[in-house]
Amino acid sequence: MQLTREKWSKNFSEWFEWVLREGEFYDYGRYPVKGMGVWMPYGFKLRQNVINLIRNLLDSTGHEEVLFPLLIPEDLLRRESTHIKGFENEVYWVTKGGNEDLDVKLALRPTSEVAITLMENLWIKSYKQLPKKYYQIVSVFRYETKATRPMIRLREITTFKEAHTVHETYEDAQRQVKEAIEIYKKIFDQLAIPYILSERPEWDRFAGALHTYAFDTIMPDGRVMQIGTVHHLGQNFSKALDFKIQKKDGSLDYPHQTSYGISDRAIASIVAIHGDDHGPVLPPTVAPIKVVIIPIPGKSEDETKRIIQYSLEICDILNKSGITCNADLDMDKTPGEKYYIWELKGVPIRIEIGPRELSSNTVFIKRRDNLKPYTIKREEIVSKVNEILDDIQESLRKRAWDDLKSKVKYSNDIEKIKETLEKDLGIIEVPWCGRNECGLKIEELTNARVLGYPTEEEREINDKCVVCKMDAKTVLRIAKTY
Amino acid sequence: MQLTREKWSKNFSEWFEWVLREGEFYDYGRYPVKGMGVWMPYGFKLRQNVINLIRNLLDSTGHEEVLFPLLIPEDLLRRESTHIKGFENEVYWVTKGGNEDLDVKLALRPTSEVAITLMENLWIKSYKQLPKKYYQIVSVFRYETKATRPMIRLREITTFKEAHTVHETYEDAQRQVKEAIEIYKKIFDQLAIPYILSERPEWDRFAGALHTYAFDTIMPDGRVMQIGTVHHLGQNFSKALDFKIQKKDGSLDYPHQTSYGISDRAIASIVAIHGDDHGPVLPPTVAPIKVVIIPIPGKSEDETKRIIQYSLEICDILNKSGITCNADLDMDKTPGEKYYIWELKGVPIRIEIGPRELSSNTVFIKRRDNLKPYTIKREEIVSKVNEILDDIQESLRKRAWDDLKSKVKYSNDIEKIKETLEKDLGIIEVPWCGRNECGLKIEELTNARVLGYPTEEEREINDKCVVCKMDAKTVLRIAKTY
Repeated sequence: MQLTREKWSKNFSEWFEWVLREGEFYDYGRYPVKGMGVWMPYGFKLRQNVINLIRNLLDSTGHEEVLFPLLIPEDLLRRESTHIKGFENEVYWVTKGGNEDLDVKLALRPTSEVAITLMENLWIKSYKQLPKKYYQIVSVFRYETKATRPMIRLREITTFKEAHTVHETYEDAQRQVKEAIEIYKKIFDQLAIPYILSERPEWDRFAGALHTYAFDTIMPDGRVMQIGTVHHLGQNFSKALDFKIQKKDGSLDYPHQTSYGISDRAIASIVAIHGDDHGPVLPPTVAPIKVVIIPIPGKSEDETKRIIQYSLEICDILNKSGITCNADLDMDKTPGEKYYIWELKGVPIRIEIGPRELSSNTVFIKRRDNLKPYTIKREEIVSKVNEILDDIQESLRKRAWDDLKSKVKYSNDIEKIKETLEKDLGIIEVPWCGRNECGLKIEELTNARVLGYPTEEEREINDKCVVCKMDAKTVLRIAKTY
Repeated sequence: MQLTREKWSKNFSEWFEWVLREGEFYDYGRYPVKGMGVWMPYGFKLRQNVINLIRNLLDSTGHEEVLFPLLIPEDLLRRESTHIKGFENEVYWVTKGGNEDLDVKLALRPTSEVAITLMENLWIKSYKQLPKKYYQIVSVFRYETKATRPMIRLREITTFKEAHTVHETYEDAQRQVKEAIEIYKKIFDQLAIPYILSERPEWDRFAGALHTYAFDTIMPDGRVMQIGTVHHLGQNFSKALDFKIQKKDGSLDYPHQTSYGISDRAIASIVAIHGDDHGPVLPPTVAPIKVVIIPIPGKSEDETKRIIQYSLEICDILNKSGITCNADLDMDKTPGEKYYIWELKGVPIRIEIGPRELSSNTVFIKRRDNLKPYTIKREEIVSKVNEILDDIQESLRKRAWDDLKSKVKYSNDIEKIKETLEKDLGIIEVPWCGRNECGLKIEELTNARVLGYPTEEEREINDKCVVCKMDAKTVLRIAKTY
């Protein structure tokens, strides 16, 4: 078996749908509502592990989980006018209850800023209660007109983690933006997903935000996918909902807010980015099964029995030490068929146990990520497996980051940029004067999308704007996006 | 402080809304959609603990968690005709996406039998894959025409655990019904909720079921509330969706199914049943905070500082041993104000630490359920607190069961039955011949609801049917219900 990434990178969409369905992650395209899929048991466990990882990071930084109603009355959704304009064409409306027409149309939440601000107005009266950080993990709905894709562009986004925070001052909210960015970096690091962080340009901010910061990653086909956003909302929503608090100096004023979200796309990235032609490789931090044991039949029925017994003992040792293990004892399938199935499920370590391992009191380990084999003594199994899992996690992270970095290029030549975006895709950084008109022109000339500009480090650019040829102030990142 | 249950039992609705909002469980009646409320952080934690308890019991009995889309197309929902008739008047319909009218109306799931059976038809081909047990925990929607009540009668039921199973034969499905009943008994036992199990009469079965078994409990005001149901669906849904499997004998046939559900009402029961005039008493199995520590200020600033230090040490010891503890250090509130707040949140144990405890290296414990005080040495804190928590759990369970049993009465006198149902409420068992017409007549005569008849033990009835005066075959349970 050779490690290949031909199908994975060249026919990514096909590869992805095959993995999701055949690997029993997510059944898509067969449920009779466009853009909505079913989380199957194995995929649900992966999803749950990702959710738990996110929850731990949010809870440990003072975020409190809540659950708001799905339905938002039309008049409430219209309270912040920029906001509703951004979503108007994508909202699903409930208009009937039983056979009755409803008096007020009810939206399936596209996001929850207005609903949450409405209740914050009842709950929060004073700066003493601030900062306040809420979050919920819910389905949100978008009546997408673009082509839908499993987990990537859905009409029901089933795993939307949305955080909403309230602060006394603009600066406090800006500090929260920084905290959110740090938390998201930790989340993506633990998921071994590489990212590039940009501030979105003015014309591509979240509807109702003063600033939008976005995490993007690059998918195997070179297209760029937004995987997380952080918004400084200023006082836009608190003003729209007349939400005031008492400040330290005794005055009443509108508080400042932020919101930040991560969706199913985090899970899509995990499945996609670490893949090869045999399927995905799940990072050990979130793999539902970390080790699968496949017994190799012996020369006699008795030997096979002893091999199975030995396999169960090893599996038990691993499970008891906290390493989720599954022994595949289905005797209707050949070992080869089982390899295929468990590779497709992305289980990071395979253990084969046959007559040789039985007689030598060892196990044979094969890593899913690089196919490296190990023969391990029984008494070393737990420490060695933990070591290999750590190494897989680190290797996945490193390879994915190297891959991403190799796909971020710099160019100041429009023709070359267009060519690269057609052929290799990825992200191109182009010198930019900082003016919106030139940014929009770049999108037009390249038929690509502006991701935004770097936020964290100051970037020294000794070049001219690719459009107007004036001195460039920063780079603008452009890409073909999902 | 005296333990009283005056407000609790006499003005239960008022008490319940006060506890939910002031105890910061669930904000109801202020979100601008009728019958939909907001889970606040503290209530959300209680909900999460209940969900985890249910998940553990389901996962350990071979149930697999999945997640299906919220929306069900009208034509799919209409495939099982009895089923849709049962729900038709309560379905919320999505008719618009953006500004477009949808071709097919989409229902907000009222329950998921048809959607799940549709996908099972794609996933399950052979008896070898059976039994198959799926479940999901989701919001379901009912356009209720009756008066809504927080957590009890909602239009968005946010915590609907619905299980759906598939079996080769009728008998296999019947065995599953029994397993489900045993699981539900365990769930309610762990939540310290007493119940009475009945088979619902033919005229009150789940729409599309052959048999419906229901768990009912009695609320503090004497009204009866359904808290769990288990349905034998036979082949009704598999036939409606043309879902066939290969049986052991090689033939193709429709499999047999069951479904069973538990809702927010389980959480409502926990909050309601163990209450008193100061608020709820949460069973330690699911209490978000098991111990609250309240420091009592000392005679000097320095003494107070040492008391706070000591409180934090005790809190740390408890948290590290797995007993969730919170030290309330808010110095703007008096100890009395804090007692009020934490009683209202139902925290099972309060620890007071003042000068006396500091100097004697002890803690003063007060139980929430019976106000019993204890003075404990520091070194015994963990074992003693665990002992008291176990005792609280058992006392809550026992008191609630005694209370329920005292409210189940037997009568064969229609006038007396009517009087009891008006005055004391509870459940009345009446002798019954077994015929539907007499059952329906009992409902009419008493203006109450038939819960059904006992399933488990055979009941020897040496009496005459309360309507037709023929020999009674069993008892029929009647009650004023929620």
